[in-house]
Amino acid sequence: MPATLMNERDLEFMLYELFDSEGLTSRERYQDHDRQTFNEVINTAKTIAEKHFLPIRQKLDTEQPTFDGKKVHILPELKTAIAAVIESGIGSATADYDLGGMQLPPIIASAAGAFLSVAGGVGMGYNMLTTANANLLQAHGSDELINTWVKPMREGRFMGTMAMTEPGSGSGLGDLITKAVKADDGTYRISGSKIYISGGDHDLSENIVHLVLARIQGAPKGVKGISLFVVPKFLLNDDGSIGADNEVALAGLFHKMGGRAQTSTALSFGEKNGSVGYLVGEEHCGLKYMFHMMNEARIMVGTGAAVIAVAGYQYSVDYAKNRPQGRLPSCKDPLSPMVNIIEHADVKRMLLAQKAYAEGAMALVLYGTQLSDDSHTAATEEQRQYAHTLLDFLTPIIKTWPSEYGPKANSLAIQVMGGHGYINEHPVEMFYRDNRLNPIHEGTTGIQSLDLMTRKVPMNKMQGFNATISEMLKTIDESKQYPGLLEFSTQLSQAVETLTTTTEAVLSAMATKNIDLALANSVKYLELFGNVIIAWLWLKQSMVATKALAEQPHQSDVHFYQGKLQAAQYFYRFELPEIYLWSTLLINTDSTSYDMQSEWF
Amino acid sequence: MPATLMNERDLEFMLYELFDSEGLTSRERYQDHDRQTFNEVINTAKTIAEKHFLPIRQKLDTEQPTFDGKKVHILPELKTAIAAVIESGIGSATADYDLGGMQLPPIIASAAGAFLSVAGGVGMGYNMLTTANANLLQAHGSDELINTWVKPMREGRFMGTMAMTEPGSGSGLGDLITKAVKADDGTYRISGSKIYISGGDHDLSENIVHLVLARIQGAPKGVKGISLFVVPKFLLNDDGSIGADNEVALAGLFHKMGGRAQTSTALSFGEKNGSVGYLVGEEHCGLKYMFHMMNEARIMVGTGAAVIAVAGYQYSVDYAKNRPQGRLPSCKDPLSPMVNIIEHADVKRMLLAQKAYAEGAMALVLYGTQLSDDSHTAATEEQRQYAHTLLDFLTPIIKTWPSEYGPKANSLAIQVMGGHGYINEHPVEMFYRDNRLNPIHEGTTGIQSLDLMTRKVPMNKMQGFNATISEMLKTIDESKQYPGLLEFSTQLSQAVETLTTTTEAVLSAMATKNIDLALANSVKYLELFGNVIIAWLWLKQSMVATKALAEQPHQSDVHFYQGKLQAAQYFYRFELPEIYLWSTLLINTDSTSYDMQSEWF
Repeated sequence: MPATLMNERDLEFMLYELFDSEGLTSRERYQDHDRQTFNEVINTAKTIAEKHFLPIRQKLDTEQPTFDGKKVHILPELKTAIAAVIESGIGSATADYDLGGMQLPPIIASAAGAFLSVAGGVGMGYNMLTTANANLLQAHGSDELINTWVKPMREGRFMGTMAMTEPGSGSGLGDLITKAVKADDGTYRISGSKIYISGGDHDLSENIVHLVLARIQGAPKGVKGISLFVVPKFLLNDDGSIGADNEVALAGLFHKMGGRAQTSTALSFGEKNGSVGYLVGEEHCGLKYMFHMMNEARIMVGTGAAVIAVAGYQYSVDYAKNRPQGRLPSCKDPLSPMVNIIEHADVKRMLLAQKAYAEGAMALVLYGTQLSDDSHTAATEEQRQYAHTLLDFLTPIIKTWPSEYGPKANSLAIQVMGGHGYINEHPVEMFYRDNRLNPIHEGTTGIQSLDLMTRKVPMNKMQGFNATISEMLKTIDESKQYPGLLEFSTQLSQAVETLTTTTEAVLSAMATKNIDLALANSVKYLELFGNVIIAWLWLKQSMVATKALAEQPHQSDVHFYQGKLQAAQYFYRFELPEIYLWSTLLINTDSTSYDMQSEWF
Repeated sequence: MPATLMNERDLEFMLYELFDSEGLTSRERYQDHDRQTFNEVINTAKTIAEKHFLPIRQKLDTEQPTFDGKKVHILPELKTAIAAVIESGIGSATADYDLGGMQLPPIIASAAGAFLSVAGGVGMGYNMLTTANANLLQAHGSDELINTWVKPMREGRFMGTMAMTEPGSGSGLGDLITKAVKADDGTYRISGSKIYISGGDHDLSENIVHLVLARIQGAPKGVKGISLFVVPKFLLNDDGSIGADNEVALAGLFHKMGGRAQTSTALSFGEKNGSVGYLVGEEHCGLKYMFHMMNEARIMVGTGAAVIAVAGYQYSVDYAKNRPQGRLPSCKDPLSPMVNIIEHADVKRMLLAQKAYAEGAMALVLYGTQLSDDSHTAATEEQRQYAHTLLDFLTPIIKTWPSEYGPKANSLAIQVMGGHGYINEHPVEMFYRDNRLNPIHEGTTGIQSLDLMTRKVPMNKMQGFNATISEMLKTIDESKQYPGLLEFSTQLSQAVETLTTTTEAVLSAMATKNIDLALANSVKYLELFGNVIIAWLWLKQSMVATKALAEQPHQSDVHFYQGKLQAAQYFYRFELPEIYLWSTLLINTDSTSYDMQSEWF
């Protein structure tokens, strides 16, 4: 029997009880679907995950891609597995029918993708990046670019990357120096070096479509002089067939701690005559377009982190239910049988913490995914705009909270299993390694925190901030009909108040104090906001559970909903109160880090 | 130039300013030594570390030991490196002269060992386990056992292990089933399976001396029926030369996430006629003897965790000082030069946190090491007894705090370096993996917390607890002469009070409530106690720094002491206050984990 990949009951809860995914079928775009077709897609993903990915999961981790000096070799089984995904249509599940897609709601695609992610590590990363790349081009590229590059990506014949980071500038995109020179035919010649390009080279597809940030000769310095180009690995002949090599050379493979199924590459563009690049949109607007992809990628990163947290939780729960060891402190008889370790209170604590992190994170990323969908397909323009406002505001939190708490959850999965969690006979140590990348890529936690404080909070007269607060107040209000949830709603009210007071203090400091000092504890602000948001989502989950319990469900569902309430209680008692410590630091504009001098280290 | 392995100025601070290691030379045992010989040993260790271990550090990680079905193959360079350690005498630095040792104080040996640990991963683990094994036998074995087994271990010809864990019983030693049958010649025949035996097989030494826990036929069930045996890989001939194979078979190697330089093995004892075992001490007293080694091993684990935290901190500080990227928020000019990332407040925060964790942990483990020494070599019996009381009490904290905060520090080292921290071009990702074992082996964090609450706190009418509190109150009192430390001493007073109140509440709950419930938050109690102890050690360090600053030291020392004060401030403001959250849960005997039912997961 294959391992339990995801908690399917919980996925059902998220899709159909917490969020109204079934209601989406009333939208024109999704009118051909119903709950049954949604579930069929999810089941297909599960089947492919169990058949094609799970058997090679460990191999993908231990047998890293190799480079023979000419070509990168990927495990052939991965090619087969990805082909099965593409064949099933899940590879471009959310795309338009006329681009070969299934027009599925993103939240359903995300649930289906979760199985593939858990079973295949980041093997699915090739596919996900391709989708994000194609989405960007579809939004900002010319018809010619779309016809030439998006179609074959949707069909799975080409794959895509995003090529931003350079050896000299890392997160500081404004300092990138990859050069673009306009040629007579209107295309550009690109030259420069990029690093950490996921899926930058491989033999999984006929061609690789790189989206490359570069600076056109004479462009302004800084972020305002960056343009975006399509730079394919191979040029195409007029008939669309694969043509000449485009001088995109693999300079080397990085050996990562985790996420090993996906190559991380150093690429060198245009060492001889320059790689041919096709401008996307207008000159000097590249960063804006890239942020289209980045925002999507940030939700993808949060989702990946949440899913790995769920996977580790699920695995360690299964283990704890079946591993006998020791006795309870109340039992002094060495002749009595051992208990399964799930009976030990501290093991329950570690599982509850994982549940609170993992299911809290899943609720957050699915909420973000639904907002993204709503911003395009909600009934009214007003609703679409409101969803966009919320999503735009919450993106740093959707990216960061799962990325920070996912690895914590995975560490607890290891701890539950003891020595068995530390060896590669079980996948939890891999989850722990894989998940550690998430607070780094697509904007580190530090960068997300500055984005939140300096852009997202003040933006549009605090529209996003205010919308978020009012959503939380609405939930608190609704929860008043459930007396059993008084503890949580009281705590959340107080937390929201603290968040508001802290935000005022922070904005005042930004306006009146040295800005470097005022921003010095930005990560604490992001952490505070994140914990309040997750507490809110746990109150929402508790409301659904309380309501369902009142309707006298089956015994197994009683257990399920009790578990929800207990995880919420864990979060409210053990985790939420940390915000008061962080709030104090922020309200005091604590200068400990700011005052520290580099010579003092 | 080799990488900076340790912060040598800080090591000097710890040995000669925080702890009076030089004063140890007045003790008879150490009378041949002085500060110069201490430093020579440390420098020798550093030289061996840089020459023999550092060049193979990565190789030890990536090229794991292999098993060809007959023999385990270890990287030959490790053999050379370990031989250099043994040759230098550092391998048994603390042992008596007449057993081939150098009679060095353990605190000096620990400082020297730190360089070897950082440079060699756990390659030195073979050696350290051997020392712990030899120390146990020397304390509890007969003269014959000592002459036969301890001597060759001290000389580095044999190596040693501890073989406790079994597949069926893990941490629950009372359930182990390895069997011992007495033979006519007074020896025993041992049969059974052991797992996770570090250094259980290798080709580094002529013989391997396993210390094996087993149950003599007819012994009582549970922990009171366990005996300890020496079971060598090879029997010895009468002249001491290597004799017959003793039926200790390698059943397999485990593939660990980290600490890969040291084999982790599954061993099968006595499959045919039983392995010959020699009883250590008396029958059924094995666990008591093993705890001699375990207590030492627990301090070793804490030390290893602290040292890896220091190593990651040091590496990421060096990196941050030399990596230009981005500009401060106050700088809006994209033409201005990039700053080194150490200038970014959030990077300073991550480095300060690492410094607070790593140097706090180092102070703790060196304090524990000194207590261990004092318990044997302090001037009066009363002093020795007092040191023993403190050490015995603090052992769960000395083991756990560095093990929990070490990985946190290493995670921050990765984060400081971004993508560069996640790839194996730099060692911080290895530190992160290596350090993750420490909360598991030699008693998990959960087990340490039960040991603290149920044994160490109530033991001897709370003698250890009271001694620890009075040590902290003494420091608070002394600190009053430094007005600049008022913030810290006030905070620590309050923390000690909270610790005392919480302890009373916990003991009362243990006496009056369901014991399983009363112990359900034991890890929170251990965490609370740990943070108070580390805050205390930061106050001690702050006193030394404040006093030194008043004496107008060299500029570089001004920087060093300012750094100490700033790290203390970080700990007092960002970390210590967490105890109030944990205290609330403990005082309320929070039942969230206890109430959770296994079917609810």
